[in-house]
Amino acid sequence: MKHTISALVENKSGVLAKIAGLFSARGFNIDSLAVGETQDPSISRMTIVVRGDDAVLEQVCKQLNKLVDVIKVQDFAGKDFVDRELILLKVSTDSKTRHEVLQIVEIFRAKIIDIKAKSMTIEATGSDSKVNAIIDMLRPFGIKELARTGKIAIARG
Amino acid sequence: MKHTISALVENKSGVLAKIAGLFSARGFNIDSLAVGETQDPSISRMTIVVRGDDAVLEQVCKQLNKLVDVIKVQDFAGKDFVDRELILLKVSTDSKTRHEVLQIVEIFRAKIIDIKAKSMTIEATGSDSKVNAIIDMLRPFGIKELARTGKIAIARG
Repeated sequence: MKHTISALVENKSGVLAKIAGLFSARGFNIDSLAVGETQDPSISRMTIVVRGDDAVLEQVCKQLNKLVDVIKVQDFAGKDFVDRELILLKVSTDSKTRHEVLQIVEIFRAKIIDIKAKSMTIEATGSDSKVNAIIDMLRPFGIKELARTGKIAIARG
Repeated sequence: MKHTISALVENKSGVLAKIAGLFSARGFNIDSLAVGETQDPSISRMTIVVRGDDAVLEQVCKQLNKLVDVIKVQDFAGKDFVDRELILLKVSTDSKTRHEVLQIVEIFRAKIIDIKAKSMTIEATGSDSKVNAIIDMLRPFGIKELARTGKIAIARG
């Protein structure tokens, strides 16, 4: 099962390496990871999407909670939360295909943020499924580059 | 100086821990990190924002390039690139302040993605400075939670 784990950690050198080490020691591969400051610059929030055995992952979360630099760990599995991801995508276009690409961008309420004779760079946000849908729609034109932030999440209410 | 480093890496368990370890061994603190799949699911892109000594960072990039699981490392410093970040922010609101918060959301072309009697959850994207500006404008209302993806970047052209 896919888990979205949010960890509040001290914004210090080495914390990320420790946490990444805990996951890799158990053989978990991290699908995506996003780390940024919170409203308090001394605290960062890591959002980790990981697939694996539920029981082992519960163990990993308990171990995370024991690290001195970890303030709070939350597994969103089964909880009510909102999540979003941002992608930047450079797609091949020319005078013939540009119109069709623009239509797709409009349907997904994405944005063009750069344009050249042979490519356009697109910014899109949404849930996993929305972001994957726009990637799938643009793939036939030729995706030159793709950068994904990985998911971030916040509990509802 | 602030550096935005983009690394294409094999999507394998342990790669993130190795890379995070390289930075922490040199005492660099990572401001933000975003890891997600690329158009090829066997390859992930890491975007790392890090501050520190230019010469030492160049060394770290060279060491990264030597790791077998690292395909390509690019330092965007001094190059022409577009970058964006996504934030989710839960702000305290009530019937009196809601209107003012909505105005700020509109000015920044952000989106309301959840609303409760005492809070609103907002999605915003942009450059560092835009994202920091909306956070600063909403801070007086009371930020309950903030999640940032960290920056992702793509070269222009």
